[in-house]
Amino acid sequence: MRTTRTRVAVVGGGPAGLMLSHLLHLGGIESVVLDHRTHEEIRTTHRAGILERDAVRLLVDSGVDRVLTDGDRHGGIYLRFGGENHHVDFEQAVGASVWLYPQTEVFLDLHEARTRDGGDLRYGVADVEVHDALGRPRVTFTDVDGAAAEVVADVIVGADGSRSACRALVDPREQFLRTYPFAWFGFMTQAPRSADELVYTRSEHGFALISQRTETVQRMYFQCDADEDPAAWSEDRIWTEMHARTAGHDDFELRTGPIIEKSVLPFRSFVQTPMRHGNLLLAGDAAHTVPPTGAKGLNLALADVRVLAEVLERALTKDDAAALDSYTDRALARVWKAQHFSYWMTTMLHRTADGSEFDERRQLGELEWLTSSEAGSAYLAEGYTGWPQR
Amino acid sequence: MRTTRTRVAVVGGGPAGLMLSHLLHLGGIESVVLDHRTHEEIRTTHRAGILERDAVRLLVDSGVDRVLTDGDRHGGIYLRFGGENHHVDFEQAVGASVWLYPQTEVFLDLHEARTRDGGDLRYGVADVEVHDALGRPRVTFTDVDGAAAEVVADVIVGADGSRSACRALVDPREQFLRTYPFAWFGFMTQAPRSADELVYTRSEHGFALISQRTETVQRMYFQCDADEDPAAWSEDRIWTEMHARTAGHDDFELRTGPIIEKSVLPFRSFVQTPMRHGNLLLAGDAAHTVPPTGAKGLNLALADVRVLAEVLERALTKDDAAALDSYTDRALARVWKAQHFSYWMTTMLHRTADGSEFDERRQLGELEWLTSSEAGSAYLAEGYTGWPQR
Repeated sequence: MRTTRTRVAVVGGGPAGLMLSHLLHLGGIESVVLDHRTHEEIRTTHRAGILERDAVRLLVDSGVDRVLTDGDRHGGIYLRFGGENHHVDFEQAVGASVWLYPQTEVFLDLHEARTRDGGDLRYGVADVEVHDALGRPRVTFTDVDGAAAEVVADVIVGADGSRSACRALVDPREQFLRTYPFAWFGFMTQAPRSADELVYTRSEHGFALISQRTETVQRMYFQCDADEDPAAWSEDRIWTEMHARTAGHDDFELRTGPIIEKSVLPFRSFVQTPMRHGNLLLAGDAAHTVPPTGAKGLNLALADVRVLAEVLERALTKDDAAALDSYTDRALARVWKAQHFSYWMTTMLHRTADGSEFDERRQLGELEWLTSSEAGSAYLAEGYTGWPQR
Repeated sequence: MRTTRTRVAVVGGGPAGLMLSHLLHLGGIESVVLDHRTHEEIRTTHRAGILERDAVRLLVDSGVDRVLTDGDRHGGIYLRFGGENHHVDFEQAVGASVWLYPQTEVFLDLHEARTRDGGDLRYGVADVEVHDALGRPRVTFTDVDGAAAEVVADVIVGADGSRSACRALVDPREQFLRTYPFAWFGFMTQAPRSADELVYTRSEHGFALISQRTETVQRMYFQCDADEDPAAWSEDRIWTEMHARTAGHDDFELRTGPIIEKSVLPFRSFVQTPMRHGNLLLAGDAAHTVPPTGAKGLNLALADVRVLAEVLERALTKDDAAALDSYTDRALARVWKAQHFSYWMTTMLHRTADGSEFDERRQLGELEWLTSSEAGSAYLAEGYTGWPQR
């Protein structure tokens, strides 16, 4: 058995795990990052693309600032309903912006930073298992060369995503789940931008979202049945659906092109508490997932990790063992706001098969009020750009 | 058959019907008001108690200003959750207030104004029937002395409440209905005020609302099953329930006393469109009902009537027959915002039997965000104090 000793073992080498390892390094704390996925696998899996104000600040303040040159600052979003775009101006409403910067780029940046700083990152390992969370914890695994290995640490962090193995080791005092009677169909297309900012569309045919990636590649989504089969959707069928949902009488034009990837995204709300079991702590999707409407997933994970780096620093370098006790409550205060925000954005814009005609019209009443109200726009902007971190 | 000729026959002599007749009178238009209920019956039926800013303005501007001396101006509400009161300050948020002034007082004031001005008001009539809405309309009825009578008018307005007979005569293009799996138990108690403003309470036992009437009589409500029997609720049982729902760890104290009236209030959302059929027009509850959370019912009726008085004046004194065409759309723009507001206040504060634990916690996340956010408080205040009339 090949043994490595460190202060923090991080299970999960996506953006959350890497950001934690990066922040710990800046605080002088050693860590090892393990992931059963390969670098290539993570780099090529399309995920979220919107960073909150404080997520960008966290990256930039920690020296990872490519987002400022390669990302696109978005000062608002469009809410499209009644066949028209209605702009919600975040800058004007709350003096804040978000950034379009795909999660895959955040991953590359953080991976580069950790590699540059000599971080111990193990991708493509197998048989990852966490032991002795209540004592001296360790992670056993099969290293990429086939050798049996273990990492012995003071603390283990499970940042291993929505299908987290670490989660199962944390005795849940409470689990909260909400399912939705629909999902998102997501696809990438080789096309010019249809708009300068995201277009969240509510139509009688259901929800659609137009977002961007580059000058020539765009990311779009539309609400579909939960059990939809991507293979059943030809390019023609996809564009027919997108045209129907975004049709209107303003000058908005949906720009189309070849479709280069398509998939159905899971859609549910989940929270498990506490986020700690002895010396095992959960972060990001491992502890909570949000539906994709409003793009809170990655941002919540980064917010968790920021709190976690702080309490770990106090616990590991200042002998403040009680610091870890505050983690769950501090993280969850933000999580529940974000859960509500994601639910709100979802129910405001989606059509439910069993939704009454009453609710359809009420939705339009809400959208009319919201977009014509400075206070309503500011309330939405506050949630979208993210609550100030505490 | 005793025949009366007038310009507008108003079926329904509650606050909406009387206000319309009053406004028409000020515009030089004659009307007759009919109601199968007696003055005594209306005067003693407890209903809503909160007037929006513009509802008060409408009363005062039309010379009915007792609300300013006998009503109580409320600059906000309390949202009570997590065992604490959280104040939402309307004055600070949007520079507006509401007034606590029971519907029964509005009725008395308007009745007095119409009587003073020689208005033709017929209470306690029977067999009211509307005829020829598409031609020269008339209302037949049995007058209070038993004589067969009719009112022939240019226009008939149905302001006859949620069980409207007039509504059945309007060909509905669309009807929208939402039911809720609960109702409100309302009661009056001889007790001092528990608070200076309304206290909307969300608890794990369900919703409760503490409102006021006078120094010595208070009005309170709590969420109950839709088929609850008021007789099954003793004073003890009612106060036990109210104490459980309002318990907490701040200095709020529920002031109790003898219960002098109790009833179960209906709870549903309804809209029928159009609000016009030829020369028959609907106003208030006859066309739309809201659940009581947020106190929009009377306010919406008065807003309808304000629009209606204006279009009737144009139609009847300026020969602008097209004016009536604008009524439904102008009224409904406000109705759908109010429907959303009432739904929002309801779902934010009530417990549903089948509501998941997730939604319970999300509610708290929403309330935490809302009450700590200037924008959120302003958005709520905007809806509660009422959208500016157009």
